[in-house]
Amino acid sequence: MQTDFAVIGASTVKVDGIEKVTGAAMYAADVMLPGMLYGKIKRSPHPHAKIVSINAGRALALPGVETVLTPDNVPRVKHKGSPAPRGGGLVADQYIFADKARFVGDGLAAVAALSEEIAEEALALIDIEYELLEAVFDIEEAMRTDAPKIHDTEMNLVGPPFMLQRGDVDQGFAEADFLFEHTYSTGRPSPCYMEPNACVCTFENSGKLTIWSSTQSAFMVRGILSEVLDIPLHKIRVIVEHMGGGFGAKQDLYQHEFVCALLAAKSGRPVKMEYTRKEAFMGGRSRHPVTVNLKQGVRQDGTLTARQVLHTSNTGAYASHGLGITAVGCLDIASLYRCEEHQRIEGRAVYTNNPIAGAFRGFGAVQAFFALDSQMDEIAHALNIDPVELRLKNAAGDGDRSPSGHPILGNGLAACLVRGEKEMNWIEERKKTAAQADSRIRRGWGVGTEMHSSGAYPDIKEVSNAILNMNEDGTVKLFTGVADLGTGSLTVMAQIAAEELGIPFKDIQIVYGDTDAVPFDLGAYASRTTYVGGGAVKKAATNLKSQLLALASGKMEVAVEDLEIRDGIISVKGVPSSRVSVKELIQGEGSVPAHTLIGQATHHSKVAYSFAAHFAEVEVDIETGQIQVKQVVAVHEVGQAVNPIGVEGQIEGGIQQGIGHSLTEDYVIDKQTGQSLNASFVDYKMPLAMDMPKIKSIILEEVPHPTAPFGAKGVGEDPIIAIGPAIANAVFDAIGIRFRELPITPEKVLQALKEKQVNVSS
Amino acid sequence: MQTDFAVIGASTVKVDGIEKVTGAAMYAADVMLPGMLYGKIKRSPHPHAKIVSINAGRALALPGVETVLTPDNVPRVKHKGSPAPRGGGLVADQYIFADKARFVGDGLAAVAALSEEIAEEALALIDIEYELLEAVFDIEEAMRTDAPKIHDTEMNLVGPPFMLQRGDVDQGFAEADFLFEHTYSTGRPSPCYMEPNACVCTFENSGKLTIWSSTQSAFMVRGILSEVLDIPLHKIRVIVEHMGGGFGAKQDLYQHEFVCALLAAKSGRPVKMEYTRKEAFMGGRSRHPVTVNLKQGVRQDGTLTARQVLHTSNTGAYASHGLGITAVGCLDIASLYRCEEHQRIEGRAVYTNNPIAGAFRGFGAVQAFFALDSQMDEIAHALNIDPVELRLKNAAGDGDRSPSGHPILGNGLAACLVRGEKEMNWIEERKKTAAQADSRIRRGWGVGTEMHSSGAYPDIKEVSNAILNMNEDGTVKLFTGVADLGTGSLTVMAQIAAEELGIPFKDIQIVYGDTDAVPFDLGAYASRTTYVGGGAVKKAATNLKSQLLALASGKMEVAVEDLEIRDGIISVKGVPSSRVSVKELIQGEGSVPAHTLIGQATHHSKVAYSFAAHFAEVEVDIETGQIQVKQVVAVHEVGQAVNPIGVEGQIEGGIQQGIGHSLTEDYVIDKQTGQSLNASFVDYKMPLAMDMPKIKSIILEEVPHPTAPFGAKGVGEDPIIAIGPAIANAVFDAIGIRFRELPITPEKVLQALKEKQVNVSS
Repeated sequence: MQTDFAVIGASTVKVDGIEKVTGAAMYAADVMLPGMLYGKIKRSPHPHAKIVSINAGRALALPGVETVLTPDNVPRVKHKGSPAPRGGGLVADQYIFADKARFVGDGLAAVAALSEEIAEEALALIDIEYELLEAVFDIEEAMRTDAPKIHDTEMNLVGPPFMLQRGDVDQGFAEADFLFEHTYSTGRPSPCYMEPNACVCTFENSGKLTIWSSTQSAFMVRGILSEVLDIPLHKIRVIVEHMGGGFGAKQDLYQHEFVCALLAAKSGRPVKMEYTRKEAFMGGRSRHPVTVNLKQGVRQDGTLTARQVLHTSNTGAYASHGLGITAVGCLDIASLYRCEEHQRIEGRAVYTNNPIAGAFRGFGAVQAFFALDSQMDEIAHALNIDPVELRLKNAAGDGDRSPSGHPILGNGLAACLVRGEKEMNWIEERKKTAAQADSRIRRGWGVGTEMHSSGAYPDIKEVSNAILNMNEDGTVKLFTGVADLGTGSLTVMAQIAAEELGIPFKDIQIVYGDTDAVPFDLGAYASRTTYVGGGAVKKAATNLKSQLLALASGKMEVAVEDLEIRDGIISVKGVPSSRVSVKELIQGEGSVPAHTLIGQATHHSKVAYSFAAHFAEVEVDIETGQIQVKQVVAVHEVGQAVNPIGVEGQIEGGIQQGIGHSLTEDYVIDKQTGQSLNASFVDYKMPLAMDMPKIKSIILEEVPHPTAPFGAKGVGEDPIIAIGPAIANAVFDAIGIRFRELPITPEKVLQALKEKQVNVSS
Repeated sequence: MQTDFAVIGASTVKVDGIEKVTGAAMYAADVMLPGMLYGKIKRSPHPHAKIVSINAGRALALPGVETVLTPDNVPRVKHKGSPAPRGGGLVADQYIFADKARFVGDGLAAVAALSEEIAEEALALIDIEYELLEAVFDIEEAMRTDAPKIHDTEMNLVGPPFMLQRGDVDQGFAEADFLFEHTYSTGRPSPCYMEPNACVCTFENSGKLTIWSSTQSAFMVRGILSEVLDIPLHKIRVIVEHMGGGFGAKQDLYQHEFVCALLAAKSGRPVKMEYTRKEAFMGGRSRHPVTVNLKQGVRQDGTLTARQVLHTSNTGAYASHGLGITAVGCLDIASLYRCEEHQRIEGRAVYTNNPIAGAFRGFGAVQAFFALDSQMDEIAHALNIDPVELRLKNAAGDGDRSPSGHPILGNGLAACLVRGEKEMNWIEERKKTAAQADSRIRRGWGVGTEMHSSGAYPDIKEVSNAILNMNEDGTVKLFTGVADLGTGSLTVMAQIAAEELGIPFKDIQIVYGDTDAVPFDLGAYASRTTYVGGGAVKKAATNLKSQLLALASGKMEVAVEDLEIRDGIISVKGVPSSRVSVKELIQGEGSVPAHTLIGQATHHSKVAYSFAAHFAEVEVDIETGQIQVKQVVAVHEVGQAVNPIGVEGQIEGGIQQGIGHSLTEDYVIDKQTGQSLNASFVDYKMPLAMDMPKIKSIILEEVPHPTAPFGAKGVGEDPIIAIGPAIANAVFDAIGIRFRELPITPEKVLQALKEKQVNVSS
């Protein structure tokens, strides 16, 4: 493993750090254009209703209203709600404006006015006559033959079920000493990105559309707008200067992005649309609530003999990534703990009249591993095997089949477990917590695990590009289409380029976030950016470096193989005095630069896997039912960490979000009316600073992946996955109650304690 | 010669045509940024004065004034007034603020305020104490040993004289039958671009400077700002969205561009500076007034035996391109008409206390060929040889030495003369005008000629780059650093790319005018854009095309050599039914594009020459002295015309400007006080629509140059050159008076008529 890095492994300041901390960074909603209008979407108040008529006459008559869009004057093209990754089994089930309302919040019309206030006022003046239809919110009810049809599909299924079948589960179950079967379910957390969805659209008179948008996939926004609005690709420019988070949800194309472009086209003026926080809930994307029925056969020694899964996800009113997260969840359950011989896994994505569920950090894995890792804990307790030992016994490792079907490389999962167990002193600490089982505050430890791919190959043919353009003074412009959701991806790209080129980090300037300037990229999803995007950057840098070395070789009359570049100096290996600086070499003597060097690469990538084990300590207050996560030891195997503080930031953020999803966060839809009950930060509870545990992040770099740039794999999604089962298992450890449904709210805890008759004196 | 072009040779609509005619195109002065200040420069009222002290206290106290710059708080780095072409013999003789005032208008301090009006008011409150120095305006006086020193140089020369010496002129003169010696001089026209100089500067908190500026050479602005302000190249972004003309003058870096950046840095706010029309005269760049003493020996048969030249240019207060235009003028005189054996040419650029002369369309050639082609006419008349015949006898042609030292390719000059003579019916038309010699209105015909290089090789190592990036739908982004001054250069680049790729013109999108987005280019000067920039585009397109054909070859199982691309369809030559569209090939079946293709090229270019002959008919009103150009037959040999209507536009614009320079335009500086006498469009007279002649433009495409893209040479500067001597020669033809000084104003005509005692009855 390479260790003599100059820039890789250094926690450099983010390339956009100063702009962000000084508040100067521009986000989509900051864009102001002369003559700009403000757009708003009219949303359905009903969860399921036929549109009988829409009359915009009163709205248009309101002074300051410039344009109204109704289903009559927008393209009637069905599209896939999400442009990226477009290979992800997406279903074209959305119109720009729905043919009927399918959830409370479904957009039905829009206005553009001189101010946001006028636009808001005008919405109330759009008269819509509805014919109410029966609505269904529960997946089981939705699959009944007599259920109202949401999209005219069999059983309200989005598509054919995902099926994975190996061997004969019945035979496997027959071979088992014990059978475990339970149903696990998860809530509907909302991504709650700091920056609500926003975009600004303007047309040039030549017909060229420029859109500033907060999106994870600028090229895919370009692609789908091109398809639906019938504008060729080169007449659309998508700009994303900075993003205040996305967490997967912003890899969907939102209704306002089409609507904004159409309002701009119709009015002939720039139009801005910015979601309110309420709209970001209602018109945004939540995580899919998933129900997993998991049955496993186990031998006395802890070996798994068979696994049967029925995985059902509630995708809400539109498909979005419903099929994708279902497939990923099923494949993940199949892979994390070895059970090769007999598996039968079925996954279904079901339409309901709820808001749309979409891609969300931990795409499918969060729900799947909550089920699997909870049950592994149940098995350990039932068989009286140490939970870590049971996991180590079954942990998928070197050569085992990964979710993508490729063999796993190395024993990252086991390494995380072993290191974490040692780091937190598992055996002794658990004895301590067990010893205090009679107080009001019950303490417990639990462990959770996960694996996650970098990139979505083979489902998506992963590709990134990079161009490196050397300036006349030896500084470099790096053109990359990767997205930075605020995670530091651009910094990582600059580090990779600087390392490979052998020039100082500060000499790299990133050009990004403008489809007119940068080469094609699929954007941010599936923890792919460092691995795939970084792979392209490294390859382009290798290309540029070879050009540099060839020039130096000619000038210095030394073979290329004998040269090296460090800190911007090209020298003969072992003869540091024989040198030329990159700047001198490029600039030459004259006033015209001696050389113009452009390095470039297209990188088609396969897949790599990162692993983690999270050890969590909780305190359960048996009087209030409140659960407090006290500390988390998070061990991640990510190959080489390019920017360790960035990796730690991901880990801490993932744990924060994962705690929320496990304990407090749930976007609640009333099961009678379909209304949102907590679409605001007053009512929807994320963990705040005071709720955070002590976190010890441990980054294992033991398995730098040979197909990864400098061995660096992804880490974006991993940290949100293992924390969920770790907490649930710790709660079991603390109070002996198994919660199979997230979030584990105080109400649920109190109810369970009551049922189990646990109280302070017990 | 290739003739089956799809796009080359078509007068396509300009790529930015719609934006411009609808008024939507953004120019530097249109940029508005939040919190922006307005900057103004305090200019010297004295032509030569030492700065004793500057006190900005009163200015700073004015409400609304945010920042003041004086020589004390700007970098004290001498720079070359012009960044481009930086190889052009430039002299570092300017500070950002002068150490002493060298002309009326020399910038000495600056303010930034909340409005332009406040900034203007504040200028008057900057108290400067001057010590007046003797000033000198005339080149002869400036070269005297007792003349005041403007830059502490010998004889106020900018640098050592340019010398070209072949053979022995005295021997050559001895071999002649006749000697002709006269002194010719030209005025000080101002470029009068529609868009006065303007820029907007803003710094990111990270220290990165973005500057919108109206410049012909964005990368050179970047380079020289980097040097003088000590900012690395990758921390400077220069943006030029559209330009309202430049005519060479905007290849200089102006004082306001430094000052604007410094005001932005000091104030921490964006700053805009826009020259008034008066400032565009005073602080801008005029053409160099040049005096050419030309002596030639001629045999009875019209053969030239020797040539001696003393070329002196008045560069004003700073060198700018003084040495460059002097060298070019000298080399041009040496080359247009064959006189290989004996030549002695000396050129001097002289400092005076006039405003700065700089690069201007026809760089040196306008003045030089006015002298040479006037004298050729004098020789023809004296020897009673037809002026066209004499020129044809001596015209430099195939194999003769060009100004750059390279052999001329083809006989473009002769071809222009022959075609023009035929087109206007030279012999008969001249007889007609001669027949009307007794009226008040005297008619005459004259001919002028010229040659001009495409590019400045070998003085500048010409280089351009291009990148072509194919979108997923087969449309193409073309990244080019060439500048479009309004001439249509970007359209030409798109045509070249479309032609070479075999895709429709409309499928090319140009990315330009942003140093952060496009690869390095030297910018617009020396009629280089089509030839050098276009060469890079063609080469990059060839590179992309080869990638496309390789893909198609694999898919179609046909050898690359058997494939062709036309109108976006790749087909087997001769088997049009065996085909695949570029779009299908790139997009593939899946939702991720099958291929990402990026073509790229660095193009190092040599030089090519274009030629022209202009035949002009004038009417001279001998009562008023007014000269009216009635018609011009302009024959240009430009290789292949990429966009004929664009070439015609250049020809017509050049003739308009050339008529102005020959008859009415002269930026007059009072020889006592150094004050501008006509720095406004009220007092400075350009020809308007009513003053324009009938123009017949003939584009000869007979010599497509082998080193040029599709044979296309430059045409930007050519049309302004030959019109001057054509008019002067026509005036001689009309009234028998030889004017050797431009402009030929009515006052001069009347004075000469009086001296010659010509009147209506004569």
